[in-house]
Amino acid sequence: MHANFKELCEIGATIHGGVSRLALSNEDLQARAWLDRQLQIAGFTVRDDDAGNLSGVLLSDDPDAKTFILGSHLDSVPDGGCYDGSVGILAAIECLRVIKEAGIKLPVHLEMIDFTDEEGCWHAHLGSRALTGMLQNNYTSDTDHDYGPFRAALYRAGIPPTHVHKAKRDPATIAGYLELHIEQSERLYEAVRPIGVVTHIAGRASYETTIQGEVAHSGTTSMEKRQDTLLGASTFIVEAHQLVREEFPGGLFNCERLDVSPGTFNTTPRQSRITWDCRHTNKEEMERMKDCLLQLAANLTQKHGLKVAHRPLTYTSVATMAGRTVLAVEQVCKQLDIESMRLVGYSGHDGQMLSGFAPSGMIFIPSVEGISHCPHEFTEWEHVVQGANVLLQTALILAQDSGE
Amino acid sequence: MHANFKELCEIGATIHGGVSRLALSNEDLQARAWLDRQLQIAGFTVRDDDAGNLSGVLLSDDPDAKTFILGSHLDSVPDGGCYDGSVGILAAIECLRVIKEAGIKLPVHLEMIDFTDEEGCWHAHLGSRALTGMLQNNYTSDTDHDYGPFRAALYRAGIPPTHVHKAKRDPATIAGYLELHIEQSERLYEAVRPIGVVTHIAGRASYETTIQGEVAHSGTTSMEKRQDTLLGASTFIVEAHQLVREEFPGGLFNCERLDVSPGTFNTTPRQSRITWDCRHTNKEEMERMKDCLLQLAANLTQKHGLKVAHRPLTYTSVATMAGRTVLAVEQVCKQLDIESMRLVGYSGHDGQMLSGFAPSGMIFIPSVEGISHCPHEFTEWEHVVQGANVLLQTALILAQDSGE
Repeated sequence: MHANFKELCEIGATIHGGVSRLALSNEDLQARAWLDRQLQIAGFTVRDDDAGNLSGVLLSDDPDAKTFILGSHLDSVPDGGCYDGSVGILAAIECLRVIKEAGIKLPVHLEMIDFTDEEGCWHAHLGSRALTGMLQNNYTSDTDHDYGPFRAALYRAGIPPTHVHKAKRDPATIAGYLELHIEQSERLYEAVRPIGVVTHIAGRASYETTIQGEVAHSGTTSMEKRQDTLLGASTFIVEAHQLVREEFPGGLFNCERLDVSPGTFNTTPRQSRITWDCRHTNKEEMERMKDCLLQLAANLTQKHGLKVAHRPLTYTSVATMAGRTVLAVEQVCKQLDIESMRLVGYSGHDGQMLSGFAPSGMIFIPSVEGISHCPHEFTEWEHVVQGANVLLQTALILAQDSGE
Repeated sequence: MHANFKELCEIGATIHGGVSRLALSNEDLQARAWLDRQLQIAGFTVRDDDAGNLSGVLLSDDPDAKTFILGSHLDSVPDGGCYDGSVGILAAIECLRVIKEAGIKLPVHLEMIDFTDEEGCWHAHLGSRALTGMLQNNYTSDTDHDYGPFRAALYRAGIPPTHVHKAKRDPATIAGYLELHIEQSERLYEAVRPIGVVTHIAGRASYETTIQGEVAHSGTTSMEKRQDTLLGASTFIVEAHQLVREEFPGGLFNCERLDVSPGTFNTTPRQSRITWDCRHTNKEEMERMKDCLLQLAANLTQKHGLKVAHRPLTYTSVATMAGRTVLAVEQVCKQLDIESMRLVGYSGHDGQMLSGFAPSGMIFIPSVEGISHCPHEFTEWEHVVQGANVLLQTALILAQDSGE
């Protein structure tokens, strides 16, 4: 598995020691080709679907068997780390290989899958949304956005945009879903536990918010009379952080981008556009937090005499992992004498999409210092191996379950 | 004068009804060619210097006479108004023409001048800085910046960058400086006075401030652990506005630009870079305000665990207009029965550069609702005519003075 890891790290390697494998990029396609080769060599049935999801399947002897899925992703954020997504792929290949080599007969087809665009370079969780039927019809054609480059990238990767929906599967055919992933946070690392058993994954709502005012001369217009959209946007950012910190202890807020127009010498900022998101692991609190943040923006801009408009970008509900899966992971950890702890996940995962579709679970392994989405992302190899082992044993239990 | 105004408005006209004549652009060069033609037709001596300043001179009979300058500028901000700079140019041409046609003999050469890049598209007050010897030696070659495009623009306009310094004149040859300009603020408009007599012009310091942190996953990194540079920058903007409002009543603060890196989905902002300035009409308060703002940035970034670096962009001292000039303008207004009021100027003007070089003055006319640096900028034509008349009469008084 480590030799495979080394090979995979080379694909899209950046000078900072990380990888850039943006979904549908040359590097992503190269990584898929690499995966295809691995699966072929190991003798699995290789499939891809209309959303570009790439699978290796260890077929059951029963052609009518359900399918148990081990999922993850090969794509990365720009200049991201080597572990995010990759360890899930490597461990899943390993699970299939070990079971095949041991000659274990399963009552389910065991499928490892690389989901398209998990990171959302174009459309977050495109592959898993398509597979579960959660993709909006207008996902490449709503009127607010130029989807030309996205459509071109899909075509270039051999994915006709209008066919992506065909990747939808029948939930009755899916026995369950399991995913190994790095935690990307510091709780396991600080608690010195090698395995995290995910119970929930946070919901996330993201918006592009545009604040409009009037441009004016920045020297001659009195401070009271200027419609300073950058002051408005800054106030929103500061107060949103404060609101979430004080009123939503389990919540997260992030503003990742701010664009100012005209941004030129001697002028006040006529327009400021921000992209922000909020997350929570409790469904009701998530809704309340989102509404409070939108209300805050309305109040602040009104106070400053500015106009505000929100464009919803993504919305993902809080996801609950299957109780049976959580218990199975804990049972395996106990058998293997590996200390585990229950966790909630704060980043988006394909497991969120799957959780409403089939009994799903996620296994986390520690990220050193919780660092992720950057080249310094690091997980002890020992933990990757332990995680892969827990994935294998849990998959075996759940696969046997499904046959009963 | 109104026919000339109409012609000038056509050069670089924008669809919003304003003009874009960025310094050294095609439109600026076209406006200079237009001015050149006007000056030639009227029979003045046309000169340009090594900084690209373009002049029309009404020569005195005494070849050793000093020169009295009527200055302004043809360049504009992007999508700016039709009055800023232009009315000063038009009125100055008119002064020379009236004096010439009336056959008035002056004991000074009377020179109208279009200064290069007043608005600071490339380097604020390039022309007047060069003429007064205030241009830094490394103005196109300090190490922090790519000056390639600026140098190319200078060459294209026929201005070799290394020769710009040669535009420096001997202050002993300059009798005085006078400039007519729109106020760009609402004090004259609100007080219903057609003429403002400028006593001081605010100093201005501007900086590019870069805040550095570490990029992290915006979902999984706890709010406490992230080094959020956009939160840091937003807090600075909000608190800087507050500081200036509470402790520096005569001061102004503006943040005109904010650039976030990487600005991508699911990441915290690793770097935020802002461009800001502050202005004051009192020299000591200006210094104290600037220092307080730099200290505020240091305190905030330290508190948030971020790094901060400032790059000074421009610094202009508070300028004091000559007492004799202020009194002359007031005397003329009284004679012409035009109500005037004393004012301080908050925007940058070439008159600031000249004020340390020769006895200088500025005459303001009202901007409707104080609007400026945008297409809606408007001044009643009646006020332009009154301003031109006050400019003419004041220039005559001061020119005669100089001969005594």
